[in-house]
Amino acid sequence: VPDNWAISGRDLHLDLGRSGRRAALEQALREAVQSGRLAPGTLLPPSRALASDLGIARNTVAEAYTQLVAEGWLTARQGSGTRVAGPSPSSAPPPPSTVSRAFHHGEFAFSTRAAVGLAGALGDTAYDLRAGFPDVAAFPYAEWLAAARTALGRTPSSTYRYPDPQGLPELRTALAGYLARTRGVRARPERVVVCGGFGQGLWALATALHRLGARRAGVESHGLPLHRRILTGAGLTLVGLPVGAAGAELPGGGPGTGQGVDLDVALLTPAHQFPLGTALDAEHRAAFVRWARARGAVLVEDDYDGEFRYDRRPLGAMQALAPDQVVYGGTASKALAPAVGLAWLVLPERLIGPVVAELTRVGARPAALNQLVLAEFLTSGRYDRHVRRSRLAYRRRRDRLVAALDPTGLRVHGLPAGLHAVVDLPAGHSEEVAVAEAHRRGLAIEGLAAFAAAGHDRAPALVVGYASPPAHAFTTALARLVATLRAL
Amino acid sequence: VPDNWAISGRDLHLDLGRSGRRAALEQALREAVQSGRLAPGTLLPPSRALASDLGIARNTVAEAYTQLVAEGWLTARQGSGTRVAGPSPSSAPPPPSTVSRAFHHGEFAFSTRAAVGLAGALGDTAYDLRAGFPDVAAFPYAEWLAAARTALGRTPSSTYRYPDPQGLPELRTALAGYLARTRGVRARPERVVVCGGFGQGLWALATALHRLGARRAGVESHGLPLHRRILTGAGLTLVGLPVGAAGAELPGGGPGTGQGVDLDVALLTPAHQFPLGTALDAEHRAAFVRWARARGAVLVEDDYDGEFRYDRRPLGAMQALAPDQVVYGGTASKALAPAVGLAWLVLPERLIGPVVAELTRVGARPAALNQLVLAEFLTSGRYDRHVRRSRLAYRRRRDRLVAALDPTGLRVHGLPAGLHAVVDLPAGHSEEVAVAEAHRRGLAIEGLAAFAAAGHDRAPALVVGYASPPAHAFTTALARLVATLRAL
Repeated sequence: VPDNWAISGRDLHLDLGRSGRRAALEQALREAVQSGRLAPGTLLPPSRALASDLGIARNTVAEAYTQLVAEGWLTARQGSGTRVAGPSPSSAPPPPSTVSRAFHHGEFAFSTRAAVGLAGALGDTAYDLRAGFPDVAAFPYAEWLAAARTALGRTPSSTYRYPDPQGLPELRTALAGYLARTRGVRARPERVVVCGGFGQGLWALATALHRLGARRAGVESHGLPLHRRILTGAGLTLVGLPVGAAGAELPGGGPGTGQGVDLDVALLTPAHQFPLGTALDAEHRAAFVRWARARGAVLVEDDYDGEFRYDRRPLGAMQALAPDQVVYGGTASKALAPAVGLAWLVLPERLIGPVVAELTRVGARPAALNQLVLAEFLTSGRYDRHVRRSRLAYRRRRDRLVAALDPTGLRVHGLPAGLHAVVDLPAGHSEEVAVAEAHRRGLAIEGLAAFAAAGHDRAPALVVGYASPPAHAFTTALARLVATLRAL
Repeated sequence: VPDNWAISGRDLHLDLGRSGRRAALEQALREAVQSGRLAPGTLLPPSRALASDLGIARNTVAEAYTQLVAEGWLTARQGSGTRVAGPSPSSAPPPPSTVSRAFHHGEFAFSTRAAVGLAGALGDTAYDLRAGFPDVAAFPYAEWLAAARTALGRTPSSTYRYPDPQGLPELRTALAGYLARTRGVRARPERVVVCGGFGQGLWALATALHRLGARRAGVESHGLPLHRRILTGAGLTLVGLPVGAAGAELPGGGPGTGQGVDLDVALLTPAHQFPLGTALDAEHRAAFVRWARARGAVLVEDDYDGEFRYDRRPLGAMQALAPDQVVYGGTASKALAPAVGLAWLVLPERLIGPVVAELTRVGARPAALNQLVLAEFLTSGRYDRHVRRSRLAYRRRRDRLVAALDPTGLRVHGLPAGLHAVVDLPAGHSEEVAVAEAHRRGLAIEGLAAFAAAGHDRAPALVVGYASPPAHAFTTALARLVATLRAL
């Protein structure tokens, strides 16, 4: 038997999933009804919605529905949609668990995934407007799987060994192209370091900088407490930078020279200050860069949601002004989901070795499988498409938030951008009371003070993460927010 | 339009890939021939082999071949197999790159994936018998994708947020069951910590133990230099433990009481000493446990290849003797591939918090997506099946290694187990010369001294990682090893 044939199955880039979809869909629906997972009377999604959800043709879904109506599993009535046929022949329903309680909670019933998830995370606080999350229910899982099929089918098996600790070349190349194209980042693949999350990258960077002699880090007056903990954990002393209408400022105020400002590193969110929502304007960017050059300091640009700007083309990355002074950081956690577990830094050449050394020291090496899939997701255009879809959805949510709050007279701060906005509280009311009132109504939300560095108080406000809820739950979440604010 | 339907596409656990396979296979083959990736005259795998490779029915492949012969893409002759039709109508071949040189290298032409990979990693050393790798060309990518489809289809979207830093409950539960069943580990899901690789887990454990006061670590006289670097990097001072016929020994020799042995932690490979290949026998295990209990020391059981024992049921994990004294560590890197990027520790309760704190501090959190897929891979039985297949393949390779070396009179050391064996060199020959001679023949291999802790010399030998090459390259790799040894 000759064994020197020239290909294995892996070499064929097969996509075996193009047909048989209707049969599979029918079978899945039958099983869901039979198992009781879909109760009698349950309203099914319109064929258009389910088709879009599954990434298949609408006709396929419509034909499956027709078939199952014919088989008696479903019923269809004009104007009432397609429903699971009933009544159920099964015995009494099981006692409600946390999950099923959440599941039967009005419009929340849409997605068992979301129901199980939120019920688990929040207990009785079933609606979530905390900032920092994308709509994870919109994760494009079918496209992710398609990318996985392509990527795993063509990849040299060498990548299944221990990968380049800086990140697979495939992904670094894809990222360099994407970031240059969409954010104006001056990136070559050799300058990209892949890590398991922006927090991990920030930890490695801060630790490396501390080893290189850095001691004092500037942080914006408001930001993620986690990032401040990472910097102090790496041995850096924090100095708060005030944030004005044009973004963060060097101590001393305004876009000054920064002369005498004793910092070795500054962590900034130039595209969309987190959480205050301003952009760092051109004048302030130039001032930071001048100061960093003169001082030999490092600026860290946390571009966590740079893809999401709703008014016009976003400002490009600050990194392009000074690639040898600015570390650019981005993540798949906002544009896709934290579950992807991938983020990236674009580094000045002198910092690549030290940062990769820190990551290597602690064995931080994101799974090569995931890196391959994200690379394919980027180069195939799927990433762009998902960002475009999300941008549209989030922009509409932001418009609805502004419209819903308009009658209350409360101001929504910040650029039309990103996944969150800051909402003033009515005069004389505290964040604690507002947050407690929201929780009483089953709404998880945070006050602005939760993000403040020590000694940086502002007028009481709520930070509204309007991207967080799944689409079907947004209306109720918004209504509860308005009710909370009216009840104060 | 009502929007409170009870399911999304994600809830349907769809498997859309059951048909259309023949058409997809035909198209992939046409494209491979048209693009020149499959050159005229190239021998294709027998339908049975390709079918097994792709996880589809043999008939599907046979029918696709028949169709393509009819279309003129392929030719089939009795006794000569199915080949790409030719001669090619295209112009002269491109100049050979590293890849195509490797590709045209005898039987090595089998897999472009392997060819590209090994050529990149080894330059001209196209055959690889270095230890520590599974046959990554056998990674069950179709089954991995199937598990991904199932796992991502049913998972609550909450898991797409920031996951439990200890590891997703789904994976910890699956691992606890698997480890109890196959290795006798006393594991509850609450005791399992998921990490991105055993190295990362060892780093977190060593760092946590150092914080808790540990200063001196015992390591086996031979082992992975990486592991020794991790321990010293965490601040621990290393003490070499001699390895005898019955495995590692406490200083002082034999299964003594260990009284007065001044160690806080000992890193062991009880199931299959790496690389010497012995097992830690029951008497020595008991001695280590007694000593650790009396001393309050921690034993780390690196069970890197515990699934691969070829003579009889492997010894269960040492951890079962003393779950409060022994940290059990395992990995998917050997049974599947390092690209999966997942490993696990089973910890005494008091160490869970400190270890998770270290992992959290550096932002080490394996991607939730991967965790979900591995959980499904385990609970669906796919992991067991892949291990069984691999065990059979590796066992055969080991038998072939022993048979090939038999005429040389050189001894193969170690248990019939694992992914490697130690082979004595002919008397009077050095490892350096043997390794250089192997490299000259295009074979990558390492000497035993590469694994020795300082001051622990042994008779010159080679460490043969017989699992490393893809199946089609094993014959040549073995022939080159024998030729190397004969040439000394």
